Amino acid sequence: MAEEAAVRAQAEAVRRLKQDKADPDEIAKEVTKLLEMKARLGGDEGKHKFVLKTPKGTRDYSPKQMAIRERVFNAIITCFKRHGAEVIDTPVFELKETLTGKYGEDSKLIYDLKDQGGELLSLRYDLTVPFARYLAMNKITNIKRYHIAKVYRRDNPAMTRGRYREFYQCDFDIAGQFDPMIPDAECLKIVHEILSDLQLGDFLIKVNDRRILDGMFAVCGVPDSKFRTICSTVDKLDKMPWEEVRSEMVGEKGLSPEAADRIGEYVQLHGGLDLIERLLQDPKLSQNKLAKEGLGDMKLLFEYLTLFGITGKVSFDLSLARGLDYYTGVIYEAVLLQQENDHVEEPVSVGSVAGGGRYDRLVGMFDPKGRKVPCVGVSIGIERIFSILEQRVEASEEKIRTTETQVLVASAQKKLLEERLKLISELWDAGIKAEVLYKKNPKLLSQLQYCEDTGIPLVAIVGEQELKDGVVKLRVVATREEVRPW
Amino acid sequence: MAEEAAVRAQAEAVRRLKQDKADPDEIAKEVTKLLEMKARLGGDEGKHKFVLKTPKGTRDYSPKQMAIRERVFNAIITCFKRHGAEVIDTPVFELKETLTGKYGEDSKLIYDLKDQGGELLSLRYDLTVPFARYLAMNKITNIKRYHIAKVYRRDNPAMTRGRYREFYQCDFDIAGQFDPMIPDAECLKIVHEILSDLQLGDFLIKVNDRRILDGMFAVCGVPDSKFRTICSTVDKLDKMPWEEVRSEMVGEKGLSPEAADRIGEYVQLHGGLDLIERLLQDPKLSQNKLAKEGLGDMKLLFEYLTLFGITGKVSFDLSLARGLDYYTGVIYEAVLLQQENDHVEEPVSVGSVAGGGRYDRLVGMFDPKGRKVPCVGVSIGIERIFSILEQRVEASEEKIRTTETQVLVASAQKKLLEERLKLISELWDAGIKAEVLYKKNPKLLSQLQYCEDTGIPLVAIVGEQELKDGVVKLRVVATREEVRPW
Repeated sequence: MAEEAAVRAQAEAVRRLKQDKADPDEIAKEVTKLLEMKARLGGDEGKHKFVLKTPKGTRDYSPKQMAIRERVFNAIITCFKRHGAEVIDTPVFELKETLTGKYGEDSKLIYDLKDQGGELLSLRYDLTVPFARYLAMNKITNIKRYHIAKVYRRDNPAMTRGRYREFYQCDFDIAGQFDPMIPDAECLKIVHEILSDLQLGDFLIKVNDRRILDGMFAVCGVPDSKFRTICSTVDKLDKMPWEEVRSEMVGEKGLSPEAADRIGEYVQLHGGLDLIERLLQDPKLSQNKLAKEGLGDMKLLFEYLTLFGITGKVSFDLSLARGLDYYTGVIYEAVLLQQENDHVEEPVSVGSVAGGGRYDRLVGMFDPKGRKVPCVGVSIGIERIFSILEQRVEASEEKIRTTETQVLVASAQKKLLEERLKLISELWDAGIKAEVLYKKNPKLLSQLQYCEDTGIPLVAIVGEQELKDGVVKLRVVATREEVRPW
Repeated sequence: MAEEAAVRAQAEAVRRLKQDKADPDEIAKEVTKLLEMKARLGGDEGKHKFVLKTPKGTRDYSPKQMAIRERVFNAIITCFKRHGAEVIDTPVFELKETLTGKYGEDSKLIYDLKDQGGELLSLRYDLTVPFARYLAMNKITNIKRYHIAKVYRRDNPAMTRGRYREFYQCDFDIAGQFDPMIPDAECLKIVHEILSDLQLGDFLIKVNDRRILDGMFAVCGVPDSKFRTICSTVDKLDKMPWEEVRSEMVGEKGLSPEAADRIGEYVQLHGGLDLIERLLQDPKLSQNKLAKEGLGDMKLLFEYLTLFGITGKVSFDLSLARGLDYYTGVIYEAVLLQQENDHVEEPVSVGSVAGGGRYDRLVGMFDPKGRKVPCVGVSIGIERIFSILEQRVEASEEKIRTTETQVLVASAQKKLLEERLKLISELWDAGIKAEVLYKKNPKLLSQLQYCEDTGIPLVAIVGEQELKDGVVKLRVVATREEVRPW
């Protein structure tokens, strides 16, 4: 009904426009108004009455969820700082053209701001493109930085699996011209440290290289023009069986069945240094310049990872492709292998929890003179990690404190508000985390109950006798032990 | 030229539209395209070539600025936690209708998102309305929480004075039905603690009450319907002399000169408990129910502030009005009295650095049954504080470290990359913050220089002799002292 009315109103307005000799600006204004009206009325989510909710694909964080979030952030930031990273921040929106042409097919998922006069703006889609813009704008050729912030994608949300339209990314990147694979190896070491620290269960870091993929496509007979689109199809191998991927290649993407089958043989390979050595001897791959370069660097990477002692959880995997356009070299993705926590009734299905790679040409896209700054980085997929930890906390019935209050200032009798306020003021000024109930005459029992509920360990009790003696009684909530320390 | 072309193209398109029998949807689509084109071409900021910048009124934070920002946040969060606050977070955008009707005249400053299908969304304008929405949505009647996040206003930026279109708010609020003025007093205590901690120089917290203002307007002969608009004019007294404010009241707002003069007498009053007592005896004000209630609570507030020992920096000021519509009781604003730092050449002009008040009806606007949750809170104006501290750091030439690295793993000879990587891996695993240069064969001098530049205090040096002896040489960068501790 609402949609019909909107369309009728629009048709009517167009009739009026055709009769009038209105100037273009007025027409445009009129139609904008109509479009806004249509948007208000039409569409799946158009509602006439006010709905009390957050936007689709977003959520609030309650104090309990924030407590978990801060724990995870602390682990991650500690690791980033351990590796000597600086931190930067950028605005939540960028000029629309800053984001244009960076994300391939995914560009349709970008949130645009309404044109209210002035610049055309879009919400950031990731932290990598703003980082590249920042480097080019400030002519920075050398930095190791982290950035933790929310990004925005108009994707289909799957919130129970931690997929949101507003979500956090935790990015660590190293920009600069360095000797090969040393920064790349450090990024993998960081993923290994963070996933170990967070105790999310067993994990595997898959590694590949865009040059190896491109070389493989070339020797399999994929035409140059189809490299990126076939790469996108290979990227689906973690969600689809090979047969479906193959039929997409041949059916939708128009690849020859022979080429697809040749790809099929390569993409099932995964291993370590042994596989790299074998492929360096592969009669076809070894003849391809790109593949050879990629395999040479992969070998170097695995040598460094051996020094770091983390090859046990790293797998060179030819099926790893990653969606984004801007990668130019090594790429990686960390997946959780299973739910460690068996007694969770419905285990959360989690896939990738970290990913990244080398992007040597992105900064050059922003630099007026095209000067390149080689970059490599990793992004921790924090929302999925939150989901797992939240479910784990729910299942374990662990009581999470959401405040850090050390002592409640309480009174044993009525009419002692003034004394309580005087005492708590002294405690605050001494840097002690303290609370008081906002009541003139609270019952002692309800004050003690408040401590039980919120986990406050101590109560400082002011009573008539204590006032006479010039002391305060201190009570340990858990043991009910009482002391008069002064 | 660009604008002319756009207008010509639009006129042409409209001609085509008038000839065609296109259906309304197609017309609308066509015009949308044109509008987008016009937006790209026209307007002040329309440029043909790509501009490397952040959106108007926004900025990046460099590592150095982040270091200052984190210092300020730490001081503020420490204070909020000392008072037992929990923390929440909400999405950066809300349903448009959530923000509608909450900000009076300022609504025009709200950023809307483009309608890309689905819900109509707007960027949050402050943290208070999302907080009220959160309480109503989750039926929370009782919480003490803080929230630190960015908010968005399409205002005229004045970035050197810390006024941005994207800026941080640090909010602390107490929601719940409590005995009068105890939470209100705690909010003022918090402002006092934070401004003292940050050592920004001398400050003053001005306090008033919306009920006193309304009572004052009533006894001065302002018609009920003009209360809010006259209140907005009074709010300008911190930027304009009384004569200009008066002429706006009489000229623009149509107030009688007599009423304006009567207001003029009240708004020059400021003081403490003595002034409150005097106004409680004021023959006119004391007859007004609202004013009497407000004055009674103001008296109670000052009694509590006396217990907290902070009345020295608090002034009951009848000229304080505050712009926002939603306040219902006590209101306050903290201003810096002067630049403490005299040798800054161009002192930053800073006004208010904190503000807030009581808003007892906002949550009820969201609750389907109109259930009220009384709230009082304070917002710290962090951007202005950043500006001051950034300028102070610049002036003092204080060297701010932007990393926390404790040790650089260096080598004295060539071909020791493997040894360096093995050692740094051990250090990382032991939780030590360590860096290594990403070069195969860096010179010792350039490694030491890196420590000087970034403030790393220690160098762990691997050399051939040390490897033979199975030790590592540790060097203190500042003193050049060397030790071989193991």
